[in-house]
Amino acid sequence: MSLIFHPLFEKNSSTYTYLLADSHTKEAIIIDAVDETQQRDIGLIEELGLDLKYIIETHVHADHITSSCPLKQKFKNAKIVLGAENSVACADILIKDGESLQFGAYAVNTMATPGHTNGCVSFVCEDKVFTGDSLLIRSCGRCDFQGGSAEKLFDSIQKIFTLTDKVLVYPAHDYGGRTVSSIGEEKQFNEMIGGGVDKEEFVRRVNAMVLSLPKKIHVAVPANQVCGSKILSDG
Amino acid sequence: MSLIFHPLFEKNSSTYTYLLADSHTKEAIIIDAVDETQQRDIGLIEELGLDLKYIIETHVHADHITSSCPLKQKFKNAKIVLGAENSVACADILIKDGESLQFGAYAVNTMATPGHTNGCVSFVCEDKVFTGDSLLIRSCGRCDFQGGSAEKLFDSIQKIFTLTDKVLVYPAHDYGGRTVSSIGEEKQFNEMIGGGVDKEEFVRRVNAMVLSLPKKIHVAVPANQVCGSKILSDG
Repeated sequence: MSLIFHPLFEKNSSTYTYLLADSHTKEAIIIDAVDETQQRDIGLIEELGLDLKYIIETHVHADHITSSCPLKQKFKNAKIVLGAENSVACADILIKDGESLQFGAYAVNTMATPGHTNGCVSFVCEDKVFTGDSLLIRSCGRCDFQGGSAEKLFDSIQKIFTLTDKVLVYPAHDYGGRTVSSIGEEKQFNEMIGGGVDKEEFVRRVNAMVLSLPKKIHVAVPANQVCGSKILSDG
Repeated sequence: MSLIFHPLFEKNSSTYTYLLADSHTKEAIIIDAVDETQQRDIGLIEELGLDLKYIIETHVHADHITSSCPLKQKFKNAKIVLGAENSVACADILIKDGESLQFGAYAVNTMATPGHTNGCVSFVCEDKVFTGDSLLIRSCGRCDFQGGSAEKLFDSIQKIFTLTDKVLVYPAHDYGGRTVSSIGEEKQFNEMIGGGVDKEEFVRRVNAMVLSLPKKIHVAVPANQVCGSKILSDG
């Protein structure tokens, strides 16, 4: 028995999708799957003969459309999972802090990490944490829409930082081609919060981010609130 | 002590660069570094306080310019390493099949894997193999220039396939956003050689590849023969 682990990349939105499976039972989960790459992901799941149990979103994304709904149409036993604070009609499970999801001999444990959006969650599996847009490599998510709060994000990242230094950090995005970091590296080198930055300074830095709205926000957020269902995403 | 491992991606040429280091001694190696991303890579090496020992190329690339020479200018103790079959003036070490390079408590072992080019080498470190353009995820390198030979590539991939199934395959490129595979997966699912394809059929498939020359070949190959040295790459 071992953990099958496929980090996958979508170039247009620089999004990482993560496919994890138990090599023995073939039970699998997918985190933050993207519309544009759904054929690749479906192909890989079928090729490896996986039994997709959970389609997980770290949050309602504003920069790309999820493929949760098409994946569920294909893998009918899979359940769509989002954090409990989201009001998303299509979710089968609204998961709370501390709850876990089992796939074969493995589990992902949920860590509520609000701040980028109020419904953000991170997931811990073995020596890996999937941090969505809460903690990015050397950076963090913006906090200026969808119930964002820099104060909450500070507390959430401190919570992520309670994991041991060797835990590997897999974010939802990286715009510079970096694929992985570690808790130890981010505690030390994160440009927003590393090296012991306090809450006041962190909030100042987050508020000083110069940001334009994501190109897809007006399409992506409504579409993702229905998990990428085509009918409504065209509306 | 643990292995620091950073797979890094360059979007324009879809190239993967791999930075590996011993977390205790800080001795490091970099495999297939790219001109466009040299500032990112230099920044990461400096930030982590690494002592770069070897700048390794799996082969003389035709699709992007290496940053070997600028990296060596920055990290003066580092040695540029290429496979023994290359005639590359700037290499400090022309490494042979079976030879290894030490960095801290870790080593990479060289496996001559000619076929994509005659000078191609792969490197094995712990549970990982860096296959350059010899073995790609579900595919393999083309064999129509730089001394390429589909017959040799067949033998080289069979040699790579002697590694155990769980060994993780890290190629020099992926054009579909896949980041890693395993020997077991490639033995089974590789579209060129998986599932027990014989040499004759493999050669037929390689020769049937419909390919245009890489956009950068006439710039990249001469530049890479001098390890990305600026003066000559402009010529």
